[in-house]
Amino acid sequence: MALGVLMALISYAMNFAIGRVVRAHKWLYREVGDGHLLRYLSWTVYPVALLSFSSGFSQSITPFSGGSGLPELKTMLSGVVLEDYLDIKNFGAKVVGLSCTLATGSTIFLGKVGPFVHLSVMISAYLGRVRAKTMGESQNKAKEIEMLAAAAAVGVATVFAAPFSGVLFSIEVMSSHFSVWNYWRGFFAATCGAFMFRLLAVFNSEQETITSIYKTRFRVDVPFDLPEIFFFVALGKPSYAALAALILASITYPPGVGRFMASRLSMAEHLRTLFDNNSWALMTRNSSPPWPAEPDPQNLWFEWYHPRFTIFGTLAFFLVMKFWMLILATTIPMPAGYFMPIFIIGAAIGRLLGEALSIAFPEGIVAGGEVNPIMPGGYALAGAAAFSGAVTHTISTALLAFELTGQIVHALPVLMAVLAANVISQNCQPSFYDGTIMAKKLPYLPWIRGRKIGSHPVSVEHFMNSTLTILAKDMPLEEVIKAVTSTDVAQFPLVETRESQILVGIVERTHLVQALQTEPASWAPGQQCCLQDVLAGGCPTQPVTLQLSPETSLYQTHTLFDLLTLQTLFVTSRGRAVGSVSWVELKKAISTLINPPAPK
Amino acid sequence: MALGVLMALISYAMNFAIGRVVRAHKWLYREVGDGHLLRYLSWTVYPVALLSFSSGFSQSITPFSGGSGLPELKTMLSGVVLEDYLDIKNFGAKVVGLSCTLATGSTIFLGKVGPFVHLSVMISAYLGRVRAKTMGESQNKAKEIEMLAAAAAVGVATVFAAPFSGVLFSIEVMSSHFSVWNYWRGFFAATCGAFMFRLLAVFNSEQETITSIYKTRFRVDVPFDLPEIFFFVALGKPSYAALAALILASITYPPGVGRFMASRLSMAEHLRTLFDNNSWALMTRNSSPPWPAEPDPQNLWFEWYHPRFTIFGTLAFFLVMKFWMLILATTIPMPAGYFMPIFIIGAAIGRLLGEALSIAFPEGIVAGGEVNPIMPGGYALAGAAAFSGAVTHTISTALLAFELTGQIVHALPVLMAVLAANVISQNCQPSFYDGTIMAKKLPYLPWIRGRKIGSHPVSVEHFMNSTLTILAKDMPLEEVIKAVTSTDVAQFPLVETRESQILVGIVERTHLVQALQTEPASWAPGQQCCLQDVLAGGCPTQPVTLQLSPETSLYQTHTLFDLLTLQTLFVTSRGRAVGSVSWVELKKAISTLINPPAPK
Repeated sequence: MALGVLMALISYAMNFAIGRVVRAHKWLYREVGDGHLLRYLSWTVYPVALLSFSSGFSQSITPFSGGSGLPELKTMLSGVVLEDYLDIKNFGAKVVGLSCTLATGSTIFLGKVGPFVHLSVMISAYLGRVRAKTMGESQNKAKEIEMLAAAAAVGVATVFAAPFSGVLFSIEVMSSHFSVWNYWRGFFAATCGAFMFRLLAVFNSEQETITSIYKTRFRVDVPFDLPEIFFFVALGKPSYAALAALILASITYPPGVGRFMASRLSMAEHLRTLFDNNSWALMTRNSSPPWPAEPDPQNLWFEWYHPRFTIFGTLAFFLVMKFWMLILATTIPMPAGYFMPIFIIGAAIGRLLGEALSIAFPEGIVAGGEVNPIMPGGYALAGAAAFSGAVTHTISTALLAFELTGQIVHALPVLMAVLAANVISQNCQPSFYDGTIMAKKLPYLPWIRGRKIGSHPVSVEHFMNSTLTILAKDMPLEEVIKAVTSTDVAQFPLVETRESQILVGIVERTHLVQALQTEPASWAPGQQCCLQDVLAGGCPTQPVTLQLSPETSLYQTHTLFDLLTLQTLFVTSRGRAVGSVSWVELKKAISTLINPPAPK
Repeated sequence: MALGVLMALISYAMNFAIGRVVRAHKWLYREVGDGHLLRYLSWTVYPVALLSFSSGFSQSITPFSGGSGLPELKTMLSGVVLEDYLDIKNFGAKVVGLSCTLATGSTIFLGKVGPFVHLSVMISAYLGRVRAKTMGESQNKAKEIEMLAAAAAVGVATVFAAPFSGVLFSIEVMSSHFSVWNYWRGFFAATCGAFMFRLLAVFNSEQETITSIYKTRFRVDVPFDLPEIFFFVALGKPSYAALAALILASITYPPGVGRFMASRLSMAEHLRTLFDNNSWALMTRNSSPPWPAEPDPQNLWFEWYHPRFTIFGTLAFFLVMKFWMLILATTIPMPAGYFMPIFIIGAAIGRLLGEALSIAFPEGIVAGGEVNPIMPGGYALAGAAAFSGAVTHTISTALLAFELTGQIVHALPVLMAVLAANVISQNCQPSFYDGTIMAKKLPYLPWIRGRKIGSHPVSVEHFMNSTLTILAKDMPLEEVIKAVTSTDVAQFPLVETRESQILVGIVERTHLVQALQTEPASWAPGQQCCLQDVLAGGCPTQPVTLQLSPETSLYQTHTLFDLLTLQTLFVTSRGRAVGSVSWVELKKAISTLINPPAPK
């Protein structure tokens, strides 16, 4: 509940601040006069300044704050620990950086889903630590991961104020399986967030005072020294950000090329106009509306129309330009989400098809004896859901489209479009998030299809790492030290005797090194002190709670690692430690299976 | 795809047949004349006959066809094998029985969700077997379970023609976790089903010929002998069903008590009227509509009105009566679903509250400076979702409410009602399906909350079954036979020697008994033949792919059993077989933890 309410407050405050900045920009652009140079400058300086600041500021605090954060979170949810990634001190950097990115509006054309999920997970990790401290409980890794999964759901849900699709989308993107418990917690927190968000909106429209109380109450505590802020100038990254922002802003300059791509509309207005019911092509066939000096709030879609280019020209031009502009924008190191731009591009694709159909069948298509005119807005809805679903490999984008529009009447066609898009994209490429994980070389467990692997008789003995550094209780200390220094693994299997090799436990490297360093007196040469003494002297060992056999199949092992978010397991045969399996071995085994080495 | 299309065909055919039967009943009731006795008989004979036939017929084919089937499927999805439960020969019994049950309409007040899920799973199991046979593949248990999960989703989805909530509902009810893969397959199959269903409706309304072709094409092949049908008379159960049907039909007789509970409406009409926007209490405050001789299709809600009882009286009476009538109906052994009645009762509860509020605030409640009249239909929607969500412990009933109404504008209030209902009901009682599982004494794994158990230091050694019947390779055959006959476990742990007790594999009871019986010559007394020889002679052993340690925690073990749908695991300590853990031990350990034994 705390998480939901906090995220709603943050989302609301950010929307409020961004709205003010955008309004100021619009005012400046309107009031600056008619000179083209001044207008051009007022159009471009804003995003250039905001983006350099966003990029430089957030990068100077922490390099983790760039990008969407979803790929890293996906990695963390599979059990990998990324140090400091959820540290609360990144929070300020991400909030400020994201606000600046979003305040550039449709010029830079980036969204906020991914960063919001990251923010939500940060807060949840922080709340978890606070709770553990106050309750005096030790932290439980499994519980932490559960909490992160729920927090991810809250993040998506607060962005769209759409609890259903938020929860489902985050589940689909984040994991290959999920427990119904998490789903519950996600729904509860997301509902709290959505409710709070709505409540704030009501208060705000009713009485300005409550908003201002809230404004002064809500402070983002940025725990870093002020001089650090200006340190970023040395990083050089802002200059790249500024250059990219200049290019993007110049292209979208409304009296220039921007005229052909509806660049005076905000991203929300893009969506609203694209989902419009009426066919623009039919409406402009006989009359051509003039290009207003200001976007007309009643007829925002005029922005999409150009007398010579027509609707089709602007839509196609929008698609082509925004496509490479989005690629350029993703290269800027700053907090930004990539879901919304993709959703809008999908809507434009759908709209293009819908308008074309409405020209081809101006009377509508005959079905069941009745003639219904074609609604290009429906095609735009399906296009948005299908394209974003294909890029992220999810189906819940269909539900998101319904929650955004408040109507679920198009359920069947939209769902079918999303399914078809998924079938094609899943066979051709990894999802956007998986692709980023691979590109960033984050650890990940490849997803294997049951069909491909279930029938292969590959078992653990074929791919396990059998060159283990084993510690035996009767090992002399010299050998122990040699073994420890010869490798850098984090855990050592502990066996009863060098002869029997019966696995009895696990020794953590850190504990062992500590124990060896604190007791230097007892291992004078010639005294024949062995590992047993060090263990008795206070080095803790962990029991082996789960062990594989050489006969366990690859499929079973993969399921186990995937479901239980494991990192390493030891393999025993008749009680003897014979090997270990970690992600590295699993990944290698799977890739060998998919692309078998050429026979010599 | 085949599954979705088949289920749509079945659902459509059943709807068609049921519609005809119901229409015939209505016609009979209308045409039979004004005599009360004749009318009463025409009202009651139909359901009595249908129900006795439904109960007797389905029970004579198989006792498995009674009830909803969801609890049994839930048990199967957790890995337990219920023999013959998915046999295709039950299919005919279930289809015919369910059609008869549903044809009784609102008199008996039962639904079809559960049975449809059972039907869908039966077909999917059958298709799976056909596929395995034609492809020459061996059957894979994990894959089978995945397919069953997807089929369950299709079953729910085809009933409501609501793919989203269908898939989610089945997931929530069926399992404590689920893989995103299954969710996909469920969506795909459910969409195929919903599309086919829609297509059939279009064909049917356009040209009667296609329906009739379809009618003749679709045949339910009932694989049993005709005389068996009449065997049910001896079972005695139909007489109970007939008696219960007589009571239920008598109570709902419209000129009698039925007048006060809108019994002339079908279940679908109950729902449609309860979701009506206008406040009936306000509309009938000054004028009282007459009770029409026939339900007026334009104003079906008149059925809910009685001049002296008022709307509140009929709604409250409906709730009280339907509540115990539903309990009575559930005791009849025949195929029937219990979700729809609960959904309608919830809608009536919500409607009652909504009507009361509309009387208390006839002008509407002031919010944000505007006055909006209260819409009791919205309360009915929330009530239906909340009550059915509370009974089944699911949240997706909220989504179902939206898919049924085609609007998602009430998202937040409905979701909040469902969450609140869930919080209360989950703390007070098991879900309807879990309760049935317990009452039927089906095997199940209790659900443990992380909080309660995560912090308890209970590990496997505290609760494992340590009185194992262990077979050693060097055991003389006499001892082996003694061991095998002394117990009836299905699997024996096989150890290397009697002395070392190192676990090397698992021997199935059936294989061992077979091997012992086929080689009686070699174990003449005095020859000192041992188990090793039997194994070498062709008795297969299975490798131990996963083993527990005495130090594994209860929480970890539970997660493992739950996620991997395991039945039994052996416990080894330093390679020696020391015990085994199955559901029985786990259940006992969990119940001890929740209700600790009183200290002496």
